Amino acid sequence: MTSSPTPPPVRGYTASKDQLLARLRRVEGQVRGVERMVDDDRYCIDVLTQISAIQAALDKVALGLLDGHARHCMREGAEAGRAEEMADEMMGAVGRLMRRS
Amino acid sequence: MTSSPTPPPVRGYTASKDQLLARLRRVEGQVRGVERMVDDDRYCIDVLTQISAIQAALDKVALGLLDGHARHCMREGAEAGRAEEMADEMMGAVGRLMRRS
Amino acid sequence: MTSSPTPPPVRGYTASKDQLLARLRRVEGQVRGVERMVDDDRYCIDVLTQISAIQAALDKVALGLLDGHARHCMREGAEAGRAEEMADEMMGAVGRLMRRS
Amino acid sequence: MTSSPTPPPVRGYTASKDQLLARLRRVEGQVRGVERMVDDDRYCIDVLTQISAIQAALDKVALGLLDGHARHCMREGAEAGRAEEMADEMMGAVGRLMRRS
Repeated sequence: MTSSPTPPPVRGYTASKDQLLARLRRVEGQVRGVERMVDDDRYCIDVLTQISAIQAALDKVALGLLDGHARHCMREGAEAGRAEEMADEMMGAVGRLMRRS
Repeated sequence: MTSSPTPPPVRGYTASKDQLLARLRRVEGQVRGVERMVDDDRYCIDVLTQISAIQAALDKVALGLLDGHARHCMREGAEAGRAEEMADEMMGAVGRLMRRS
Repeated sequence: MTSSPTPPPVRGYTASKDQLLARLRRVEGQVRGVERMVDDDRYCIDVLTQISAIQAALDKVALGLLDGHARHCMREGAEAGRAEEMADEMMGAVGRLMRRS
Repeated sequence: MTSSPTPPPVRGYTASKDQLLARLRRVEGQVRGVERMVDDDRYCIDVLTQISAIQAALDKVALGLLDGHARHCMREGAEAGRAEEMADEMMGAVGRLMRRS
């Protein structure tokens, strides 16, 4: 379905790689912020509020990656006869995210 | 209920502050690892597995902080006549952690 | 600390027992609605939306019960010298709710 | 790709419809069990343990439905030129399940 020369395989999240990296750097900064809060003996409830914000930010990154998988990897996988394998992998990832394990 | 001189207020998580900081530094390293994975165009499902691991680690940190709140802050709050306020704060934190918001 | 005759032990959620039962009956009805949807071969995404609504409703019931535990059981437990045990039980419950296991 | 006469459209979860219904009936019974526990003033922590079990059972039902969507609906949608729409719907469902809203 593609003409030669074959383009390099497109990762599911390539389109927004810079966005993803920017979000992850922000998460890294948030984690460092929580370290400072703990180091300064800040009130535990305030620290927990920050941790919830980090979890929400990581959920967004994860949903962005899953979205790329559902749109790109699964389509390419289907064309390559690997649709079942792709669906298995995605369901495994969703299950781990829901159970956080 | 305590005699003067008043001891410095004990943060709920003081007992294991070093443990908490060690865990948070490990989380920070895990986030940097995910940034490298994204930068290297690693397969999205593998990146998602790492993100689930980070979220599980943050859940443990959060449970440790909540535990400190339940044991220390709530008792001190009760002695200071602020039991309701302490319970309110804790329930708010639990709700945010469950809904990840 | 209380004078005789001893009042019957107050369950953490007694105050809003009727509310809790009303919510649970609504959840039961929602589950039956999902059964009908599946039986009628309704579109899977619509069924999933209903399941998310049920889970949100159960989260609210759980938060209401935890709230009662934090306010009533923990106080009574503290007066009975069982504060640690009460905190252990609550943290176990929070952990199970967060991990959904 | 299919020969006529066209088979009736296969719902994503048809293959295991009986299993799904059996699981949902079990969930319904678990909810009724929790109603009885509340009615009998059972200890709130024990009620919470049951609610966590129901949430875990509903997670399994939801993962089963998502799995069907990923395997059947998305493939059929792709063949019908509706791959983007299918992926949108699935990501919406995953987001609601993760945030339980």
